[in-house]
Amino acid sequence: MGNNLDALFNPENIAVVGASSNPLKAGYIILDNLLSIGYSKKIFPINIFKKEILGLKCYKKLSDIEDKIELIVLITPSKAIFHIMEDLEIRMAKKKDVKVIVCAAANYGETKTREGIKRQDCLINTAKRHGVRVVGPNCIGIIDNINRVDTTFVETLLPRESRGKKGGISFISQSGALAASILMMGASQPEPISMNKFISIGNMADVDFIDLLEYFERDENTKVIGMYMEGYHNGRKLIDTLARITKKKPVVVLKVGRSEIGAKAANSHTGSLAGADAVYDAAFRQYGIIRVYTIEEMMDTLQSLDGCILPKGNNVFILTQAGGPGIYCTDAYMDEKILKLPLISSETKKKLKELLPDMANVCSPEGYADITAAADVHHHVESLRMVMEDDAVDSVIFITVVPTFLPRKKLADELVRLLKDEGYGKKKPLYICIMAGNYVWECREILEKNGIRTYDTPLHCVKAAANMVKYKGFLNSMGGVE
Amino acid sequence: MGNNLDALFNPENIAVVGASSNPLKAGYIILDNLLSIGYSKKIFPINIFKKEILGLKCYKKLSDIEDKIELIVLITPSKAIFHIMEDLEIRMAKKKDVKVIVCAAANYGETKTREGIKRQDCLINTAKRHGVRVVGPNCIGIIDNINRVDTTFVETLLPRESRGKKGGISFISQSGALAASILMMGASQPEPISMNKFISIGNMADVDFIDLLEYFERDENTKVIGMYMEGYHNGRKLIDTLARITKKKPVVVLKVGRSEIGAKAANSHTGSLAGADAVYDAAFRQYGIIRVYTIEEMMDTLQSLDGCILPKGNNVFILTQAGGPGIYCTDAYMDEKILKLPLISSETKKKLKELLPDMANVCSPEGYADITAAADVHHHVESLRMVMEDDAVDSVIFITVVPTFLPRKKLADELVRLLKDEGYGKKKPLYICIMAGNYVWECREILEKNGIRTYDTPLHCVKAAANMVKYKGFLNSMGGVE
Repeated sequence: MGNNLDALFNPENIAVVGASSNPLKAGYIILDNLLSIGYSKKIFPINIFKKEILGLKCYKKLSDIEDKIELIVLITPSKAIFHIMEDLEIRMAKKKDVKVIVCAAANYGETKTREGIKRQDCLINTAKRHGVRVVGPNCIGIIDNINRVDTTFVETLLPRESRGKKGGISFISQSGALAASILMMGASQPEPISMNKFISIGNMADVDFIDLLEYFERDENTKVIGMYMEGYHNGRKLIDTLARITKKKPVVVLKVGRSEIGAKAANSHTGSLAGADAVYDAAFRQYGIIRVYTIEEMMDTLQSLDGCILPKGNNVFILTQAGGPGIYCTDAYMDEKILKLPLISSETKKKLKELLPDMANVCSPEGYADITAAADVHHHVESLRMVMEDDAVDSVIFITVVPTFLPRKKLADELVRLLKDEGYGKKKPLYICIMAGNYVWECREILEKNGIRTYDTPLHCVKAAANMVKYKGFLNSMGGVE
Repeated sequence: MGNNLDALFNPENIAVVGASSNPLKAGYIILDNLLSIGYSKKIFPINIFKKEILGLKCYKKLSDIEDKIELIVLITPSKAIFHIMEDLEIRMAKKKDVKVIVCAAANYGETKTREGIKRQDCLINTAKRHGVRVVGPNCIGIIDNINRVDTTFVETLLPRESRGKKGGISFISQSGALAASILMMGASQPEPISMNKFISIGNMADVDFIDLLEYFERDENTKVIGMYMEGYHNGRKLIDTLARITKKKPVVVLKVGRSEIGAKAANSHTGSLAGADAVYDAAFRQYGIIRVYTIEEMMDTLQSLDGCILPKGNNVFILTQAGGPGIYCTDAYMDEKILKLPLISSETKKKLKELLPDMANVCSPEGYADITAAADVHHHVESLRMVMEDDAVDSVIFITVVPTFLPRKKLADELVRLLKDEGYGKKKPLYICIMAGNYVWECREILEKNGIRTYDTPLHCVKAAANMVKYKGFLNSMGGVE
């Protein structure tokens, strides 16, 4: 089984059944995405009417292709499944090469109609007979940025040169729409979000949460796992798997169906029982699985776990250049009972007071400093250095509303110098919020292109900081694995 | 006093003391903003070294200007205040024309130094002797989109043609940085946020919350009032004023210093006591003042109150094209205890089932429908029409993750036809979320340019819908004012 999932993420040649020459069709976009990401092996479009699509030679049937095929992507109208499975039988009798099918097409078991179930049974049973694993049906596909595979039909407007950027996040989504949204949101960040592997699992008629979690558990390139889930038929086994993994690498879960009505909607959607949410919630807490409540919190938390080292403890300093946003941040911070404003040394306080404009507020309250709008680039960078150097500080939230008279490119460059060149960004977790809108976009881009993550609002910083602290606390309680 | 604030928002001629020819300086950006917004009367830059800035003739002193001046903007280094006030005395002895000063410069009372307080006293006392009102010091200025006045030194990258767009929101901020952030965020929306009046009140050494609230209470162009506040010396009077206004027009408040530590930071910032938050909170609830907790919720709520009619009641239907985001929305919805999923008629259900793809989920749970990813533009638009026409429905949350094969421009155009041309957008409040990122930006722009507000995420829709329902409930409890 492990080998078959290897072929899912790193297949030797791919056939796309239902390939299209119409740029508005999913069967075209899949080919375009595979080419754009730079998939290096062969792609075989199956289309009975066309000779060539996007420069790729078309075939009429799977059984016509001489080369080895390890992965088949299905994007045909669902009623064609019987015919395609017959063709697969013919191929497998000769070649025995196909290892995985990604069935992106919908209109299968999720319809709960007799026809839909029959189609799904045909797909799964034929595949099983030949030892072929199936992802989906009713999914949007998979992405592997390490091996440069993208079988999704999602258009993200991501520029070609940004495709295939590797990261440590592997993500599983039970909803195709949510998966697509995450790809589109991720592509619109100052620096597009870099994932390792990404998979939309659709109906989970075969490959399911457990298969993928076990795969990501072993995968060296997966540093952190994210999941969007509605429900799973074997909650006990899922929790056991998550509990085992999360001791080694963090797992972040956005589980919906929290409310009874939400659970009912989830049941109507994927047919899976959401399960008593309280049971899941208790298990998540007990086993250190990080539960998040919004899409934004999920993305911020995953990126923080991927990009920052874990904090030593729960002492998070708030360093702000802007009074209002700083106070706003403090309120959100106090809502997270786990965070603690650190008591920095009188020496650090003295150094900050010497450095900063007269008006600056150094540590009233403790663990909080406002360098004020009069702060120049040097004040920004050096105060951040001083706070990060203080032993009482485990993490820093850093907020600035770049005023007109502060050269924002210079600010970004100097922050890169401190955080990247001097290595401060790797010493302690840092959550930078540069407000707001398009005006500061260039500044955020410079930081993010240099591996320094920025957060949309102070609240986003707080949520990410709290989740990092929670996970570290869990590891400590397990005996200090890191 | 009322007259003086008229001169603040609609001054006959403006002098800018501290005008600069350096595009990086606030004294330049103020002139540029005044010109960009299309201020139609005269602008007099005061700069002793320059003959002309941005085509405007410079003057050496206030007392040199022959024309009438009603508004003075101060953006000089604070130590120059004594000299400027002497010059003002000379001018007022002759002309008696100045009505308001906006002191954007900082380094006054907020420093809590003897020098700072002395400077502020000089400014305020001189102004008072001549019946001149003062906004600030330590603020970022004011905007009036009706009269095309912009005295701020905030660069938003807003294109010139989008400046001066009128709306019904009047906003007061006690934090300059938060005010600047809101302007920058607002300018980055699919359609830049349109305000009526916008004011950063800084130290409130003279013009304060009460003055402005009373002004906005009478101002016919103000449909809804937004406030960011840290604290106020006379909480009782503030609450009395708010309680009177909110019976006539809604007031949305983001009050920070919720936590004890946040209150301490607020006190260090503006020197104002945040006051026992619980007291404010109880008063806000009692008097129907809408309290919000995030910047995003504030902006969404203000725009909903400005752009939508109030709902008849609390029955909010969830119509989604995407299962995952729909369930996610439902969870957030159920957190808002005030919202109620409506029971639509069996006739509407029948019509929806006839219209929609077989897979569609019509009303499981009640008040929720998933038109599925198979829905085309016609399904989107007509299902929305059917739901909006049902008498049990007071408002609709509408979510779609535009798939590749759905022509997104056509979807936007057809929605405009229903909501604007056929007038459905004015019949009941509608909260549209089109997910996600840059991919759907064009679609959102088309809607917003046609006066149909879109929301970033399902959660944003829910928060806005709940606040609208709360305000309507308050009005009903007052005897049904509308």
